[in-house]
Amino acid sequence: MGHVQPDIAQVAHVELLTPKPQESFDFFTKMLGMQESGRDKQSVFLRGYEDTYHHTLQLTEAREPGLGHIGWRTKSPEALESRVKALSSTPYGVGWKDNSIGHGAAYEFVAPDGHRGELMWDVEYFDCPEALKSLLRNRAQARPTQGIPVRRIDHVNLLCADVSTNKRFYEDLLTFRTTERIEMDDGTEMGAWLSVSVLAHELALVHDITGTPGRFHHVAFWYGIPQHLCDAAELLRESGIEIEAGPGKHGITQALFMYVFEPGGNRIELFGDAGYLYLDPDWKTVTWRERDLEIGLIVYGGRMPDTFFAYGTPIVEMPSDKAAEAAARMPDPIAS
Amino acid sequence: MGHVQPDIAQVAHVELLTPKPQESFDFFTKMLGMQESGRDKQSVFLRGYEDTYHHTLQLTEAREPGLGHIGWRTKSPEALESRVKALSSTPYGVGWKDNSIGHGAAYEFVAPDGHRGELMWDVEYFDCPEALKSLLRNRAQARPTQGIPVRRIDHVNLLCADVSTNKRFYEDLLTFRTTERIEMDDGTEMGAWLSVSVLAHELALVHDITGTPGRFHHVAFWYGIPQHLCDAAELLRESGIEIEAGPGKHGITQALFMYVFEPGGNRIELFGDAGYLYLDPDWKTVTWRERDLEIGLIVYGGRMPDTFFAYGTPIVEMPSDKAAEAAARMPDPIAS
Amino acid sequence: MGHVQPDIAQVAHVELLTPKPQESFDFFTKMLGMQESGRDKQSVFLRGYEDTYHHTLQLTEAREPGLGHIGWRTKSPEALESRVKALSSTPYGVGWKDNSIGHGAAYEFVAPDGHRGELMWDVEYFDCPEALKSLLRNRAQARPTQGIPVRRIDHVNLLCADVSTNKRFYEDLLTFRTTERIEMDDGTEMGAWLSVSVLAHELALVHDITGTPGRFHHVAFWYGIPQHLCDAAELLRESGIEIEAGPGKHGITQALFMYVFEPGGNRIELFGDAGYLYLDPDWKTVTWRERDLEIGLIVYGGRMPDTFFAYGTPIVEMPSDKAAEAAARMPDPIAS
Amino acid sequence: MGHVQPDIAQVAHVELLTPKPQESFDFFTKMLGMQESGRDKQSVFLRGYEDTYHHTLQLTEAREPGLGHIGWRTKSPEALESRVKALSSTPYGVGWKDNSIGHGAAYEFVAPDGHRGELMWDVEYFDCPEALKSLLRNRAQARPTQGIPVRRIDHVNLLCADVSTNKRFYEDLLTFRTTERIEMDDGTEMGAWLSVSVLAHELALVHDITGTPGRFHHVAFWYGIPQHLCDAAELLRESGIEIEAGPGKHGITQALFMYVFEPGGNRIELFGDAGYLYLDPDWKTVTWRERDLEIGLIVYGGRMPDTFFAYGTPIVEMPSDKAAEAAARMPDPIAS
Repeated sequence: MGHVQPDIAQVAHVELLTPKPQESFDFFTKMLGMQESGRDKQSVFLRGYEDTYHHTLQLTEAREPGLGHIGWRTKSPEALESRVKALSSTPYGVGWKDNSIGHGAAYEFVAPDGHRGELMWDVEYFDCPEALKSLLRNRAQARPTQGIPVRRIDHVNLLCADVSTNKRFYEDLLTFRTTERIEMDDGTEMGAWLSVSVLAHELALVHDITGTPGRFHHVAFWYGIPQHLCDAAELLRESGIEIEAGPGKHGITQALFMYVFEPGGNRIELFGDAGYLYLDPDWKTVTWRERDLEIGLIVYGGRMPDTFFAYGTPIVEMPSDKAAEAAARMPDPIAS
Repeated sequence: MGHVQPDIAQVAHVELLTPKPQESFDFFTKMLGMQESGRDKQSVFLRGYEDTYHHTLQLTEAREPGLGHIGWRTKSPEALESRVKALSSTPYGVGWKDNSIGHGAAYEFVAPDGHRGELMWDVEYFDCPEALKSLLRNRAQARPTQGIPVRRIDHVNLLCADVSTNKRFYEDLLTFRTTERIEMDDGTEMGAWLSVSVLAHELALVHDITGTPGRFHHVAFWYGIPQHLCDAAELLRESGIEIEAGPGKHGITQALFMYVFEPGGNRIELFGDAGYLYLDPDWKTVTWRERDLEIGLIVYGGRMPDTFFAYGTPIVEMPSDKAAEAAARMPDPIAS
Repeated sequence: MGHVQPDIAQVAHVELLTPKPQESFDFFTKMLGMQESGRDKQSVFLRGYEDTYHHTLQLTEAREPGLGHIGWRTKSPEALESRVKALSSTPYGVGWKDNSIGHGAAYEFVAPDGHRGELMWDVEYFDCPEALKSLLRNRAQARPTQGIPVRRIDHVNLLCADVSTNKRFYEDLLTFRTTERIEMDDGTEMGAWLSVSVLAHELALVHDITGTPGRFHHVAFWYGIPQHLCDAAELLRESGIEIEAGPGKHGITQALFMYVFEPGGNRIELFGDAGYLYLDPDWKTVTWRERDLEIGLIVYGGRMPDTFFAYGTPIVEMPSDKAAEAAARMPDPIAS
Repeated sequence: MGHVQPDIAQVAHVELLTPKPQESFDFFTKMLGMQESGRDKQSVFLRGYEDTYHHTLQLTEAREPGLGHIGWRTKSPEALESRVKALSSTPYGVGWKDNSIGHGAAYEFVAPDGHRGELMWDVEYFDCPEALKSLLRNRAQARPTQGIPVRRIDHVNLLCADVSTNKRFYEDLLTFRTTERIEMDDGTEMGAWLSVSVLAHELALVHDITGTPGRFHHVAFWYGIPQHLCDAAELLRESGIEIEAGPGKHGITQALFMYVFEPGGNRIELFGDAGYLYLDPDWKTVTWRERDLEIGLIVYGGRMPDTFFAYGTPIVEMPSDKAAEAAARMPDPIAS
């Protein structure tokens, strides 16, 4: 009968922790053409050239890589109020934070798996210097000449010790809807893709085979042009940046992907395109079974390495028996 | 303070009139890889391989080319009820129609410029034969091997004798929001792009320089892969199909476009990609001024020929003084 | 001081043996858009739409997959005479064969590893039916509407028990020049790429880790458009055709590759583009050392699976110790 | 009976004259990612990242834009000797020049239309600094991070008052072969494409409708990746560089093209790919008739503007009657 309209509008920004702040900064600016828009204490703020807000990426120096927090913008002040009301009566709500760089008051929360988030309405827009202005009136800034420049932030993917519990948290308290999910033969939910728009996802939750709660899988920056993944791949390889997988196409969401590790150790997705759009207002969640996983993971583009299912930040040592067990469950697209 | 959520969800289908039904059918099936899903009287029903409904294109034999009607799906039964209530107290509301192919009861209306539309909630989904099923669980049907297959319907563009009046009709009565518009130096509105989602548009209204009301500019079918426009261009040229413009990129909406004429005479857009997405819940309408038109029309890809501003279906003879006047106002991206 | 001009001009055609002739035929015609140009006994003849000769692929029914023979065209009748003279005084020359389909008299030979070849000057050109004619006067036939059509044959890759001996045979007796090669730390030559033009190779020789002489690695058909590899990958996956590796880019020759298995079991390369051209008339052979192999094999596009180094046609069982030894020598681009 | 092997191997470099040396330099380095390799008097020397010689582009300050000279490398010292012998007995031979930057002794000539050229064998190779070295052993330098970097020089196109006479000069005295040509209904030769390898051309000669001898049409730099033309187009447009035509595909040679004007006024082609290769050793010249010109000029990508046939460097005023006459003979791909 049609979906209830979500109160969340989009990923506004992501804070990443990095033990190598200068190298991380160089990666995002020289390789991905991102622009610095401010610094504060141990943080530097960055954005892609079509990102309209003050920043979409906050790099914060830390001993270990990982997620700082995700900033979510609501659809309206009323939507923010509604979500705060829902969260504040649960153990997940933390409280208001006023003194942020780049946006107004934000309500902080901690999801069941331990990932930190904040909700906000008031944001500061990027004020483009005259010299950087684009001729395109729908573009926040002219296309940079440096690197293979990303256009904007797209989505976040979180590792979860328990996918289903966290999925219900984001559905029930934050109004996300699950577009696609993986259900294994034993009934466990291995992954879920959640959306607040016609995009297939702004948030993904994937089972952490190490059992560690609260880890970070990746944040994606969008190109919209598939070839740019190949260009970035070539540039990054010659620069000594490790490519984990891709360029390729997932069956799940039909996304065009490439995964790389920024020097701080966090996985970054370079996002060729969104793939399948959920335009049907009465769409049903798509469930991929264990037997579908081969094409669900890869339509083309090699195969997903074992690290894709085991590596997250902060880094943990995976007991070898767990790794073996996990690998045994994963399909091998090539040898099938 | 955030946008009100629209009651319309998407373009469900478009009916095109064609004086050459067999040639039109061959074009859509052999060149664009569309699939036939039914016939009725003078109509044949077609869909792209990622279209999920019974059909997205109805080809109806007629003496002249042009638009039959546009089918819009609402976000819910309640949204349909709300829109019918709004329309039925105006002269634009026509009434309910029950016996349609491919969907349930629909409420018909005629927009101020004379374009016919219908609103519906109940739709019939495409029931894929076993032999055509895709391995991708989010794909309605396997990718066809014929032609350069389009994936789904994307948007409709209508010529209007009066853009502003029609824009207000779609905004006020059908809950569209205007993402981008062209304002000429004399204050007239030359075009408007309207959206009900994060896409830049599902509907565009462009000034008809002949002054004729109710004509059709184009319907767009989506690829998502820029190269496919070049592939289609090459295939169509060798098949004697006329390409009007592109492949290229508009500044307005940042769309990757190519315009061709199907044998019946209607303009069809092959849509490489959507370009700019309106993810910011508080986005403001982007206004392109007359001085911006050069890059607004073409970032790259040749220049828009005069026909782009004068030709629509049904075809009308344009008084030569109007054509000269119109051409004089249009920018020439090359000679600038 | 500049290279001597080779007597060989190009790969004219390749004969493949297939135990599943109908399935192989369907693969090349329905998926790769190749055209049938004749049948004879157990063979069917095919060509891509920019192949100018009678055929470039001969499919011959056989108990096991593998290479029938390679047809090489010389640069002139005199060049043919010169090569025949050279070969006929060696044990590799076999003799003239007159009754071939699609070309005139050919001189047969057997290379040291056992691969069969023939040299010819007189060829029969494709006589295009009126209905298939292209508007392009440099195109043998209009672009087909079926599948993701390949344009022409490009090169052949042979597995060799002894790369160096065969390389010298092709250099000394057939006037090929080695553009690139892989030298392992123990001094053995693991692969060699041989050319008779500015293309990086028309022939490659790769070490067969099973030690079997005379096997076939792959024949490549050319697209020239990188995206077509992704299109073919998607189409083939949904059709149940196995993709071995790619789409991706090799460092060696800088080729854009994808490897698939046709239903008869032979490996086929879909060739996105040639990559690096040897335009310098005084170029020196490029040697890739064992330590370069990681990027030599893959600049981007996943990693080469073990089968790439072990599988050839006819199929042989590889002793497991040899497989382990081979795998141990291969770099892993991902885990590096 | 097969073609005689040419004595010329390739375009080694081109000297362009520019009245805006700094702006031209910025264009080639910041936008096209070329690298400076030296300066001398009024000249600066540049190369693309896969150019292997000291330079492929010499920018020389001058009062007017235009061609300085073209440097051609022969296939061997003997080939050089042979060509010098042929030229020196004609009025076109000038003599030896010893003190060049980036190469050894060169023999200068002036073609019938007045274009200056030089032949050489000894060249200086680019000596790559350690910091710029590529991991790819067949790449002269790592891919730059600046702009949309071109890979190498490809070909030169010259305007000629008399195409046929110059074609014969390059065929007879410099051993080029004509792969494609345009013959108008009145028998005149409007253009000729000449090759010394399997590439469709290293040199093109196009009729100058102003009747001025010795002007320059363009030099092409090669990408090999079609999307890079779109990337460059977008970057150049936002930087105020004028795009004359494309991205698109010519029928003649099947080249993927885009034409832009560097700030000094010279036309530069950004070359997506070479298109059709003349691998057949017995290929016949392809003649495009006047009636073929529409698709010969444009398979897709808008239409060629009038400037394409009239503008060259140095710039001359074209008598308006000649322009009208020329335009009348040109096909209009769109209105046809």
